[in-house]
Amino acid sequence: VHVITLTTDFGAQDWFVGTMKGVVLGINPCATIVDITHEIPTGDIRTGALALGASFRFFPKGTVHVAVVDPGVGSARTAIAVQTKNYFFVGPDNGVLSFALAGEKIKAVHRLENKKFFLKEVSHTFHGRDIFSPVAAHLTRGVPIRKLGPPEKGYVKLHWPAPKQTDRVIQGEIIYLDHFGNAITNLPNHLLTRVDATRSLSIGRKTLCSIKAFYQAVPKGKPVAVPGSAGFLEIAVNDDSAAKVLRLKLGSVVTMTVR
Amino acid sequence: VHVITLTTDFGAQDWFVGTMKGVVLGINPCATIVDITHEIPTGDIRTGALALGASFRFFPKGTVHVAVVDPGVGSARTAIAVQTKNYFFVGPDNGVLSFALAGEKIKAVHRLENKKFFLKEVSHTFHGRDIFSPVAAHLTRGVPIRKLGPPEKGYVKLHWPAPKQTDRVIQGEIIYLDHFGNAITNLPNHLLTRVDATRSLSIGRKTLCSIKAFYQAVPKGKPVAVPGSAGFLEIAVNDDSAAKVLRLKLGSVVTMTVR
Amino acid sequence: VHVITLTTDFGAQDWFVGTMKGVVLGINPCATIVDITHEIPTGDIRTGALALGASFRFFPKGTVHVAVVDPGVGSARTAIAVQTKNYFFVGPDNGVLSFALAGEKIKAVHRLENKKFFLKEVSHTFHGRDIFSPVAAHLTRGVPIRKLGPPEKGYVKLHWPAPKQTDRVIQGEIIYLDHFGNAITNLPNHLLTRVDATRSLSIGRKTLCSIKAFYQAVPKGKPVAVPGSAGFLEIAVNDDSAAKVLRLKLGSVVTMTVR
Repeated sequence: VHVITLTTDFGAQDWFVGTMKGVVLGINPCATIVDITHEIPTGDIRTGALALGASFRFFPKGTVHVAVVDPGVGSARTAIAVQTKNYFFVGPDNGVLSFALAGEKIKAVHRLENKKFFLKEVSHTFHGRDIFSPVAAHLTRGVPIRKLGPPEKGYVKLHWPAPKQTDRVIQGEIIYLDHFGNAITNLPNHLLTRVDATRSLSIGRKTLCSIKAFYQAVPKGKPVAVPGSAGFLEIAVNDDSAAKVLRLKLGSVVTMTVR
Repeated sequence: VHVITLTTDFGAQDWFVGTMKGVVLGINPCATIVDITHEIPTGDIRTGALALGASFRFFPKGTVHVAVVDPGVGSARTAIAVQTKNYFFVGPDNGVLSFALAGEKIKAVHRLENKKFFLKEVSHTFHGRDIFSPVAAHLTRGVPIRKLGPPEKGYVKLHWPAPKQTDRVIQGEIIYLDHFGNAITNLPNHLLTRVDATRSLSIGRKTLCSIKAFYQAVPKGKPVAVPGSAGFLEIAVNDDSAAKVLRLKLGSVVTMTVR
Repeated sequence: VHVITLTTDFGAQDWFVGTMKGVVLGINPCATIVDITHEIPTGDIRTGALALGASFRFFPKGTVHVAVVDPGVGSARTAIAVQTKNYFFVGPDNGVLSFALAGEKIKAVHRLENKKFFLKEVSHTFHGRDIFSPVAAHLTRGVPIRKLGPPEKGYVKLHWPAPKQTDRVIQGEIIYLDHFGNAITNLPNHLLTRVDATRSLSIGRKTLCSIKAFYQAVPKGKPVAVPGSAGFLEIAVNDDSAAKVLRLKLGSVVTMTVR
């Protein structure tokens, strides 16, 4: 397998992402490069971590996942590669890899210091092109991770906002708003194995009555909570944007109550 | 050929499209995946059908075209695969495939019901990842369409707004506004084989004088109608957006008159 | 190598770019197609030239670079292919290739006139699909450039705004604003080999004090000038958009002074 994925905050306007791909293909012409997204909000490490965490496990074993949300580029922050049971991960050691890594069995963490696997000239502002892309390409060609630099004991972990559970109430929050205006919460779907009419969901003081299996289970324009495809409860509005209609924001508190 | 195309309303912000590609590559590492567009307006089945209809025939024989504009995801709506003389098509049976299929010789239509060709866990909100991508990948590997599920006699067809023709007047409408602000009408180019000064084009009460071969045939800022690359008459403004300058909207009436 | 890059002003909304890729794959199923960007502002040949000029050299030898920013499509403007020591370039002869070509040793320039290498039907509005894509695909299959049409002596060159240097002052301008709001100037990085506190940078009358190696070398919210990854001095604001904070525009004058 020669798959490399890219998750960045580089946007679509500039030549940055294309240039990274050119570097990869110069080292491994057989690489298949997949964009996860380049629309992570500028410098938003946490959202980058979420995007990678929600998608990495759908790729074939051996895939090299590269995440570059890197406001500290050029500074003393460390860059790392991580080998897990199933994948490789490459990026700055600022937490952007941590939600994905939390679900994987870690086999090795190495700092990226061996300049042999970088471009010859390394800028201080575009390590995506000069360090992360060539390192990822070399990994797909079978370079052992230990050759990239000295081992590290760990990596920076972002705080995961675990839901707070009491007897009859589980309190969570909105962790992501998607393109459709659906709001992904931090309440895992498995809390809902006993989905039934005895549960209700509230956002602030507003009660959302329905937890259903799919969007169209409620009339158009009505809110609904569904077990989401990322593994977490999602709040949606059938045929509309829940973010707009319900004025949801990142961090909005969501409460699930057993009546 | 192992080409799969994707036409969706998923946008660029999230990890959805990338995840679909991961699923495809896990089943067929040799697949070449091409984005047609992911910027179909949310739930706009008709625009999805137009985009696919305007592009599918430029792909090599055997290409598997996947279209996911699917507001009914998770509900009882059917999912289908269609084999035509030249291509395969995969998507919800809501009409999104129908404009493309109208130009093809249909050989088989099958419902997607054989879970062997789905991901192991199927969500109720992301069939693009869990059903359509794996099915498309299996088709590129040579799985016969009949193995995907029971045959269907037909598929949902969207209404195509045919132009109304009388002796000296052809009345059509604007069916698409592109990135440049060019307005694509439903008036086929072949109506223009006898393009000459004796014809004029009107939008509402406003007469557009010129039907020309290309945009720069009129001065900058001036409107022009040209035979478009999608097979239909397009209304443009040289070096500007016709949509803005002429305040064009989807459904605006366009009248072609032989003087 | 079978790499083709695409740089256009086609945007992401429509089926245009996907269709070009379909045409390429129909001619060369082994081609690897990389998007540099499709978000060049409509008809902005100069920005297209900049994007290609900043990225082309990071691709493997033999790559075919296609640039389609082509307001004159369908008119009498010439279309060309250029072979250099390392690459091929394909596009309209309107200057969009010229910044890249300025850095390459030219071996041949040919007009695209041999219809054998076009699609059978050529529209007057979408040469990206009908001419440039098929020609590029044929080049990756080894068709010699001389077969594409008659040789040309030169190609259209855009004016490059060279900085004006006097004894203690170098005056340049802003030539590009990127997705992050960083402003790329026309002042080459090598002017900064002697970067030190004795130099200051001014935009209009406002003095930017710091020329540093990376963004985080100044506090958050503060402006900084750094040697940029495209080879030119960049003006940034740590953790913010320099374009917004400093109200920078294309063409804004930038003055570097040795105190």
